[in-house]
Amino acid sequence: MRRILIGFMYDGNGFAGYQVQPKGETIQQVLEEAIAKVVSHKVAVVASGRTDAGVHAIEQVGHFDLLNDGISLDNLVRGTNSFLPSGIAVLWAKEVDKNFHAQKTAKKKTYRYICYQSDVELPLFVGRAAWIRGDVDVEAMKKAALCLVGEHDFSSFCASNSGRVDFVRTIYSIEIEKQNGIVPLIVFEVCGNGFLYKMVRNIVGLLLEVGQGRRKPEDVNGILRAKDRKLSGKTAPACGLYLKKVEY
Amino acid sequence: MRRILIGFMYDGNGFAGYQVQPKGETIQQVLEEAIAKVVSHKVAVVASGRTDAGVHAIEQVGHFDLLNDGISLDNLVRGTNSFLPSGIAVLWAKEVDKNFHAQKTAKKKTYRYICYQSDVELPLFVGRAAWIRGDVDVEAMKKAALCLVGEHDFSSFCASNSGRVDFVRTIYSIEIEKQNGIVPLIVFEVCGNGFLYKMVRNIVGLLLEVGQGRRKPEDVNGILRAKDRKLSGKTAPACGLYLKKVEY
Repeated sequence: MRRILIGFMYDGNGFAGYQVQPKGETIQQVLEEAIAKVVSHKVAVVASGRTDAGVHAIEQVGHFDLLNDGISLDNLVRGTNSFLPSGIAVLWAKEVDKNFHAQKTAKKKTYRYICYQSDVELPLFVGRAAWIRGDVDVEAMKKAALCLVGEHDFSSFCASNSGRVDFVRTIYSIEIEKQNGIVPLIVFEVCGNGFLYKMVRNIVGLLLEVGQGRRKPEDVNGILRAKDRKLSGKTAPACGLYLKKVEY
Repeated sequence: MRRILIGFMYDGNGFAGYQVQPKGETIQQVLEEAIAKVVSHKVAVVASGRTDAGVHAIEQVGHFDLLNDGISLDNLVRGTNSFLPSGIAVLWAKEVDKNFHAQKTAKKKTYRYICYQSDVELPLFVGRAAWIRGDVDVEAMKKAALCLVGEHDFSSFCASNSGRVDFVRTIYSIEIEKQNGIVPLIVFEVCGNGFLYKMVRNIVGLLLEVGQGRRKPEDVNGILRAKDRKLSGKTAPACGLYLKKVEY
């Protein structure tokens, strides 16, 4: 038995999120079926974490146990990709220690969130970035974001149906940048040791309210301390969120 | 009767090109139907030029004649967008002179072509950029591109079934740039007074062969002078091509 770690990319559109569930095709299910065809046995892929329906991964990471010794990792990648639909691809595979665990061993995760500014909803961004109208104050958002960096109880940013008990996480950095493309883009990069259910989208949702002047940067501290999801902002749409990097 | 010029964006995926045709849903058809619902009469939208199936437009331009005086241009844009699928959107509308013609009056067109470099076909670029493996020599491509700038007979770069007789066009500039995203991108911008059928994709196809060392930059001059499509390169895939700007 060899424990294999894989990196994989997906376009979240058209999938009912990462984890296998009764309704809709999931990334985990499609991936496990493709790998099983190549290795000739059932596999269970444990990812670094779930992603919701519509959320993308630039590089998600997962492990599974390979019982078939007669297959090279190059052939595993190539073979799996030949069975995957165009919305998912394995980027690399490597052997890891049998105690390595894609979720539990993860030390650091980086998410990117992309918004585009336009008066009209733009076809070339549909399903790839979140639409905002009008300008946003990036400096105000940066100021607000600073309150969230560090070790905190992030209850106020956790979806209520998460079933979790431990809400303490550490955010290492939140970078916010305005980029000029065919329309202005606002790009958030949030790096932390782990994230609660919908935490990144809830943070971005609140920061956008600050950027649009509907909240003050100094409100964020109080919201964080209140540990009450009802005080926080709207959850930003799934289509703008990308899991960018998982570090071990 | 008012002649209206509109700017519109589309994601070429899922459409059988611009022009109305018997098979498959086209951009023209969907657009004309949406406008007709708003203005309460049939319209024929004349675009600056056709685009093939899978080709995108950052900003295509077209005109049509509006018989209904009781509608503001703001409401025309908003109303039309409410009837359009997410793959097409009207960006703006303005009234123009009755002699203005979106195709015949066009002076300058700019196309963008995007390739991404990766060992694996990447889900987040599928249908949005053309996949190339391995590195390309941008300097060699720039050198080759210089031979194409200016007024030339572009028969060697025109798809054979175009039915055209005049193959002379002027290319004002070809810019080629390597950009660093989540993977390296090669971005071409080609600006000219007009383009023959599949001309941009044929130019990019040949330049990529130069970049990959399969042709020499100095071969391009001979290919241009030969006026023979068979000597040129492979047509680059539609998914990487974007109509960026039409100038009048």
